[in-house]
Amino acid sequence: MQTYVIPFNKPFIAGRELEHITEAVAAGKLSGNGAFTKRCQVWFEERYGFGKCLLTTSCTDALEMAAMLTGVGPGDEVIMPSYTFVSTALAFVRQGAKIVFADSGARHPNLDASRLEELVTERTKVIVPVHYAGCACDMDAIMGIADRHGLKVVEDAAQAVDSWHVGKDGKKRALGSIGHLGCFSFHETKNIIAGEGGMLAVNDPSLARRAEIIWEKGTNRAEFFRGEVNKYGWVDIGSSFLPSELTAAFLWGQLEHLDAIQAKRKRLWELYREELSGAPRDDFALPEIPPWATNNAHCFYLVCRDLDTRTRLIARLKAQGILAVFHYLPLHSSPFFADKHDGRALPNCDRYADTLVRLPLYYELGEDDVRRICRIVLE
Amino acid sequence: MQTYVIPFNKPFIAGRELEHITEAVAAGKLSGNGAFTKRCQVWFEERYGFGKCLLTTSCTDALEMAAMLTGVGPGDEVIMPSYTFVSTALAFVRQGAKIVFADSGARHPNLDASRLEELVTERTKVIVPVHYAGCACDMDAIMGIADRHGLKVVEDAAQAVDSWHVGKDGKKRALGSIGHLGCFSFHETKNIIAGEGGMLAVNDPSLARRAEIIWEKGTNRAEFFRGEVNKYGWVDIGSSFLPSELTAAFLWGQLEHLDAIQAKRKRLWELYREELSGAPRDDFALPEIPPWATNNAHCFYLVCRDLDTRTRLIARLKAQGILAVFHYLPLHSSPFFADKHDGRALPNCDRYADTLVRLPLYYELGEDDVRRICRIVLE
Repeated sequence: MQTYVIPFNKPFIAGRELEHITEAVAAGKLSGNGAFTKRCQVWFEERYGFGKCLLTTSCTDALEMAAMLTGVGPGDEVIMPSYTFVSTALAFVRQGAKIVFADSGARHPNLDASRLEELVTERTKVIVPVHYAGCACDMDAIMGIADRHGLKVVEDAAQAVDSWHVGKDGKKRALGSIGHLGCFSFHETKNIIAGEGGMLAVNDPSLARRAEIIWEKGTNRAEFFRGEVNKYGWVDIGSSFLPSELTAAFLWGQLEHLDAIQAKRKRLWELYREELSGAPRDDFALPEIPPWATNNAHCFYLVCRDLDTRTRLIARLKAQGILAVFHYLPLHSSPFFADKHDGRALPNCDRYADTLVRLPLYYELGEDDVRRICRIVLE
Repeated sequence: MQTYVIPFNKPFIAGRELEHITEAVAAGKLSGNGAFTKRCQVWFEERYGFGKCLLTTSCTDALEMAAMLTGVGPGDEVIMPSYTFVSTALAFVRQGAKIVFADSGARHPNLDASRLEELVTERTKVIVPVHYAGCACDMDAIMGIADRHGLKVVEDAAQAVDSWHVGKDGKKRALGSIGHLGCFSFHETKNIIAGEGGMLAVNDPSLARRAEIIWEKGTNRAEFFRGEVNKYGWVDIGSSFLPSELTAAFLWGQLEHLDAIQAKRKRLWELYREELSGAPRDDFALPEIPPWATNNAHCFYLVCRDLDTRTRLIARLKAQGILAVFHYLPLHSSPFFADKHDGRALPNCDRYADTLVRLPLYYELGEDDVRRICRIVLE
């Protein structure tokens, strides 16, 4: 395998992650739902105004919990973008729901909210907006459609920690706090990492009790330990969604430095934009931030003119030891789903799959590195 | 919450766990399927003769993968003991299968293999023997029934790391290597720990390729990185079953000391038996190891005469600052399952649920602690 002078991503230690792990061992608790788990959960609830937060072993697991909590099953339809990671769809497929894939917007990989309502049928139960690159979907439009049709909204905020939506009412709301449920990732490629990890924010209070039960393997164990019931047992579906205290202790070490991490990433992101904004725009376009969104500097991407331009750009960077990567293969035409798709063309999704490229962006990346990458891009 | 002089369990650092985590960070890989994951997997394959091993975030997740790989769905029946942890059942319920609960044996909590075949119907697809306390089920009988009826066998070896079955053919086989699939736990209460964690052993080679795909969120990503396919995408169901390198690095630190850990646990277990074996046997019975099984010292339990005797014993230990615990509430009569059960009485299961008590047993427990606990038990 080639090693890169500048990899696409690099996990990092922000501060006292390893001390916290040692502390968890000393405290005699390494399984899930311990002191560090609770500390992380409360931190998110207080800082971002989320409902009840539950750490999970991955964002996939948070999405699976959300799928269970929405109550979808065979015959129900769930609308989501095709331009997303496979987990967004997998979680709902596992509950037996039918996925209806939406196209991306013409100017942003996020789902095109202006064409969302035409996908709603009598069987639609859930909309899953994915905040691509941490950039808010048009949540005013999406929540409006959900309200009109009585749908649940599950925000896939995997990339969207510390990012916001400013509504028409002027209110600034954290992404993941707007829908009934919000799902986050702490995978090593995210702004805040725990190796693998995730979190479910349960913003609809009527779902909170069941969320905790599903999280604890379908048992009312958490209520038992709080003294609310006098024995615990199997009461519902569920799984082992909770991560160990190793994971939570590491995550806490990151959360203690979130502001510094975000400041550093935003500086690098702005530097990319400055260095590239003078370039002629026929070869590639820079990321756009819609007026209702903030930028959490999760990802700096370019939308190339065509597949060939992207292929050449990635090859040129690779020749200099720099790894830039593309994603996603459209889910609607994947080997698993192609014969289940209703045949609609999703041209914007296909275009982003062919032309979007992500440049290196991680905590320990240097400003000189960014300038060097930009010089190669501009050549 | 009360703190105990002698807790029931205590997680421990066996050696270089934290160094390994630091090394994983330095190597630039904290997400799943990295160097430590591969090292752990190969170690298990070579030491115990397992088929392809895949680390998971929990034994629940390993069981879910197994349930997917057996291909069970609505209308199919899966036989397992009622006296087990809820995850054994949950994983198969999630695939839509019907659970048929078997009773425990008269002299051992493991399922009564002599009465297993009468539960097999035309719809039976899978048998799930659970090796309680790490002690082998009668695998000759179980594999024979599976062979006769064309059933898959998923060993729930959550407690059964480093334990063996000696067949009628004289062959000694590691638990988890005998069925088509074997599932392990590295939860902090187990012999070898990673906080939360598990592993699937895929002993049936025809299931290995699909296992890897299901593990990697339904994608053929692993094949892509080995250069076997030239792009990867969504090809199957699956989930994010793989743990982070944080978890794998910690686990590797434990595996390096497995022999020492096992020697220590066996010494403590034998000490319990020696100290208690002279006691009059009308109040409680000691654990029995069937002739085909070995003892991996996962758990030292007593089977009390009745519920009242157990309640008094637990209270007496608690008064001295010692935590002894019972489990499991029978799954067949749980709030979730009671109305789905076929009404058969499972008297041995009910008896163990009422009378079995587990005494403290962990790596850092002292021999003096064991003697002290035994004195209180004998009083």
